[in-house]
Amino acid sequence: MLKDFLTNQDSWLNQEGPSSDIIFSSRIRLARNFSDYPFPHRLSKFKKENILNRIQQVYKQVNCLRKSSFLRMEELDNLERQLLLERHLISLQHTSSPKGKGVIFSKDERIAVMINEEDHLRLQVISSGFDLKLCWHLLDELDNELGLRFEFAFMPDLGYLTSCPTNVGTGLRVSCMLRLPALVITKRINKILELLTKISFTVRGLFGEGTAAYGDFFQISNQVCLGLCEVELIENLAGVINQIKEQEVEARRTLLKKYKLSIEDSTHRALAILRNSRLINSKEALGHLSMLSLGLDLGIIKGIKRNVINNLFIISQPAHLQKIEDRPLKEQERDYIRAEIIRDKLKQEDFLKIRN
Amino acid sequence: MLKDFLTNQDSWLNQEGPSSDIIFSSRIRLARNFSDYPFPHRLSKFKKENILNRIQQVYKQVNCLRKSSFLRMEELDNLERQLLLERHLISLQHTSSPKGKGVIFSKDERIAVMINEEDHLRLQVISSGFDLKLCWHLLDELDNELGLRFEFAFMPDLGYLTSCPTNVGTGLRVSCMLRLPALVITKRINKILELLTKISFTVRGLFGEGTAAYGDFFQISNQVCLGLCEVELIENLAGVINQIKEQEVEARRTLLKKYKLSIEDSTHRALAILRNSRLINSKEALGHLSMLSLGLDLGIIKGIKRNVINNLFIISQPAHLQKIEDRPLKEQERDYIRAEIIRDKLKQEDFLKIRN
Repeated sequence: MLKDFLTNQDSWLNQEGPSSDIIFSSRIRLARNFSDYPFPHRLSKFKKENILNRIQQVYKQVNCLRKSSFLRMEELDNLERQLLLERHLISLQHTSSPKGKGVIFSKDERIAVMINEEDHLRLQVISSGFDLKLCWHLLDELDNELGLRFEFAFMPDLGYLTSCPTNVGTGLRVSCMLRLPALVITKRINKILELLTKISFTVRGLFGEGTAAYGDFFQISNQVCLGLCEVELIENLAGVINQIKEQEVEARRTLLKKYKLSIEDSTHRALAILRNSRLINSKEALGHLSMLSLGLDLGIIKGIKRNVINNLFIISQPAHLQKIEDRPLKEQERDYIRAEIIRDKLKQEDFLKIRN
Repeated sequence: MLKDFLTNQDSWLNQEGPSSDIIFSSRIRLARNFSDYPFPHRLSKFKKENILNRIQQVYKQVNCLRKSSFLRMEELDNLERQLLLERHLISLQHTSSPKGKGVIFSKDERIAVMINEEDHLRLQVISSGFDLKLCWHLLDELDNELGLRFEFAFMPDLGYLTSCPTNVGTGLRVSCMLRLPALVITKRINKILELLTKISFTVRGLFGEGTAAYGDFFQISNQVCLGLCEVELIENLAGVINQIKEQEVEARRTLLKKYKLSIEDSTHRALAILRNSRLINSKEALGHLSMLSLGLDLGIIKGIKRNVINNLFIISQPAHLQKIEDRPLKEQERDYIRAEIIRDKLKQEDFLKIRN
């Protein structure tokens, strides 16, 4: 069943959104807990199963989850759990100790509900590009519908109660995944990251909590959930993201003005290596794909569609490769198959270019 | 006049010789001094001029120098002296303090005579590939002819006298320039270099004395000139070179057997970068050209002629680039033009491949 991912054209991962050249994705999540159960880390396996069953019985009645998939983490193998992580449907934490954990996700992979992660429910909406409005619209609807069916732990003076005190209040975390190659190249990124921490925003890597910033990808999110309402929290982050976006645009302009040759060199080299390598690890591939994207953004590289690159970002990840081959692969095998797939996809692009 | 170099198809640099896949060039030189002058470092400018004039008057009568060029270093600019170095016609030492120094070289650039370097005369014959016999044949003839016209400093019990005591005796130094990528990749090179030093051979870089080994290029030469006759010295070195050659052949076999994927990856990447970079410095270009050569040697890369690569090795050097452009170039300009020329030459190759 998880094989459908590979051909899922409906997935947000295959769409483009507003400002996709800088903002890879937008995401909002809410933490919710049932008032009649202890938090997951104090729950027995039996009671976790209780919660899973309770949700399995009702999720299809919830409007926006009607056509979703419900999976018990225990019934998945390691590779499948990894695949869910690579598609941003579950957290790193949710891939380990699978007993009593579950996930629900919609066909377009925009909506995902983790069950018995740190909280009983983690509701997430994720979307391509810079589109926090869409995320909040869907998430608010989901939260309201679930609120009609379940009683969530809530105290009037504190708000929603959560397993970790940092989430108490709205239980909301809003984040954007940014691709900031020009700020990295011009080294302006360090000052920006420093400032972000000072004004209480968190910077993380491609897979959220517990992962380091990686290549040109930076996940920026709010640190506090308390004292502001949901819309204010979202607008605060949107304001910050807009400023960083402008800085990246400015840095790209500087690159073209002052370092044109050097950036032409780097982007053409990235494409050349992707088209010709026979072994490439995921970190290197990610770096070159990001540089290639920058080449497209700046108009240096032409004739390659952005969605081909976006798709390569996703399928060149380890679990995706193994799902494509339908067998476990050792590291060097993965590097070999990754290189082959990337060469193939970029060759098809050449072919299209010649025909058109 | 030095511009002729760029189109000199007769130059040994554009030829292939025996075992050219491993041995780039063979070279023998003799140090000779006139008995009636002090060694060059004790000579006045006036007396150095005396020697230069004396040689200028007679060199055309010497059979193998008849169609040679005679140049006073003082009359050349920096760039031209650098160009002579890049063509292996003069030493690094001969490029500085040009007063009273000169050089004679034949049209095919095989024979070169440096005047007033460390000794009054340094006679050199250099040839493509592994061809010490040819070198010695020409050099012996040149030495004999000069010996008929000049009286060289010679003592029956010591042999030829030279400015530096390490050259006393035969005044002969014999060397081969080797390209040993497989020994470098498999890291076997270190043991070999250690051993060579123990048995009194010297390892140097691409431009001989005072230059470090560079990329995959190693110049190996005898350390002593005394106690053995010329032919014995040459045969000793030839024996050592043959052994190293076998080691490199064996290492290349190992690469194909044990590290096939990795070597396919490296060679295809090298070609891709050479075909697509927009800025490339000479050290990087040398490294990729060497890897590309290895790809040809191992049959991984096809459709590119070895002499195209050999030519790129030469013309991508700084002075050659500036001579091609006919103006002094700053570093980044050189990197840009080097990348452009390499791309062009390798594109012509693609074109030939499609037509044939």
